[in-house]
Amino acid sequence: MTEFELIAKFFHTTPQLQSTRLSVGDDCALLKSAKTLALSTDTMVLHTHFFENADPFLLGQKALMINLSDLAAMGAKPLAFMLALTLPDADPNWLEPFSQGLKQVAQEYHLDLIGGNTTRGPLNINITIIGELDEDQALKRDRAKTDDDIYVTGTLGGAALGLQILQNKMSLPDELRQQALAHFHTPTARVAFAQDLLRLAHAAIDISDGLAQDLTHMLQASGVGADVMTTALPLFPEADLLLALNGGEDYELCFTAPQNAHTKIMTLAQKHALQVTRIGTITDHKNLIFLDAQNQPMDIVIQGYQHF
Amino acid sequence: MTEFELIAKFFHTTPQLQSTRLSVGDDCALLKSAKTLALSTDTMVLHTHFFENADPFLLGQKALMINLSDLAAMGAKPLAFMLALTLPDADPNWLEPFSQGLKQVAQEYHLDLIGGNTTRGPLNINITIIGELDEDQALKRDRAKTDDDIYVTGTLGGAALGLQILQNKMSLPDELRQQALAHFHTPTARVAFAQDLLRLAHAAIDISDGLAQDLTHMLQASGVGADVMTTALPLFPEADLLLALNGGEDYELCFTAPQNAHTKIMTLAQKHALQVTRIGTITDHKNLIFLDAQNQPMDIVIQGYQHF
Repeated sequence: MTEFELIAKFFHTTPQLQSTRLSVGDDCALLKSAKTLALSTDTMVLHTHFFENADPFLLGQKALMINLSDLAAMGAKPLAFMLALTLPDADPNWLEPFSQGLKQVAQEYHLDLIGGNTTRGPLNINITIIGELDEDQALKRDRAKTDDDIYVTGTLGGAALGLQILQNKMSLPDELRQQALAHFHTPTARVAFAQDLLRLAHAAIDISDGLAQDLTHMLQASGVGADVMTTALPLFPEADLLLALNGGEDYELCFTAPQNAHTKIMTLAQKHALQVTRIGTITDHKNLIFLDAQNQPMDIVIQGYQHF
Repeated sequence: MTEFELIAKFFHTTPQLQSTRLSVGDDCALLKSAKTLALSTDTMVLHTHFFENADPFLLGQKALMINLSDLAAMGAKPLAFMLALTLPDADPNWLEPFSQGLKQVAQEYHLDLIGGNTTRGPLNINITIIGELDEDQALKRDRAKTDDDIYVTGTLGGAALGLQILQNKMSLPDELRQQALAHFHTPTARVAFAQDLLRLAHAAIDISDGLAQDLTHMLQASGVGADVMTTALPLFPEADLLLALNGGEDYELCFTAPQNAHTKIMTLAQKHALQVTRIGTITDHKNLIFLDAQNQPMDIVIQGYQHF
């Protein structure tokens, strides 16, 4: 199978969006939007992000979902994506379910696959995603303000537990085991909720490297600090505090908003049937402080995922 | 070194273009253009595109240049790019020259580095490039018309010769050897020339997999054929015909234009100090035919680079 046959067989889709002016098949894709484009790129690598014999359908889903999570973290509306796929061989038994997983998420989130590249080499799945937004509303990470409330969506630590299960480091009752694995394999990007947040929130980041590390990025960018009430954290069942703070790949949103937005945010959460939890407050003391049940600072080592 | 320190140290640059609204450091980059955006992605992989101990400065240059070539093939003006870099380790002795090569080309072609991703794994260099153009002028590959002249820029077969030299399959006199290696390591994307072609040419493609294969793509997309005069082909010195037709990585442009544009195209070539050669004619017989000095069809096997 040539590169061109492979693309035609597995990755040709009919564009659905008016913004897609030219899709797969030319030297470039063409895209047109009257708004500002939000762009992000993310890679999944064998042995770093997944294991030998990982289910290709789930990999296809997740590769696109983790990029959607970056769009959600800006509040952008998804438009399109490009796939750069490096493969050891052109195995239809891998490519068919992988492309199905990818297309399922693309369809669910109204994304056009507009271009890409296939190359021979060690398995490497890279996606570049493009969304659009009104520039002055973007949920930038440097916009957190002193006295803002800090929120997170969903629960924390589930994906890290799922990874421990896959690594045989942890066992759980069957139902919980399935839920933790689902958090690892099929995270959910909070795309629609984030777009509704645009008018309400100040700053946002997606939690890919653990809340402690990702919140630190937001605080540093904004030049502020935070008090986090650890008793308020929405821990995944059986996840301990350190795992919830330092475990990666939850792909939930962490965002800040002025205190007077609280009621509206909770109404939004209800509209989207999404768990949204207020976990703390932005401060002007520039430190990230975790408080225990007695409101006393805890000694927690921030240690998110490090590639190098 | 953390991923974030690595990015700050080697890949932080100050955006120069008005279209770049938000650069490296948030969940997404933000880009704004009143025109249509052209997007492409291309990957270079160890053992597939380059060898162990390849010069990282040259890799940085080439990784960006092959993406610029895709913008040139549409006639787009470069705006920005994103780098997804998978690395076995964070070696400053590799990263420093690699980032210098990348930045040199970025500066020369007025490109902002607006985002990216670094991951641990087998070396894989992926770039997504973004340009802009007036949509109705884009040099699409399906717009070749019967009786159009066919042109190529530069010479053909030099990069393939350079590869043979690196593989110890070929020896050449020193000056020619250096030239062939330069064609392999530092191709030149015909970006400025292509933008001037917008008003004149019908269709274009960049020659990355060999003229025979790439021209075939254009003919199939346009539903036409071509007569190519092999004696007119601008062969790199010492490159034989088959190497020039089937050898990859020249990154020259192949384009078609109506016959009455010939004088203007030659004037443009002069303006850009660029060798531009008329090599044949688009036909309605739907075959790609190579003609010899006696105008007789030759028996040539089209065999461009195949990844799988």
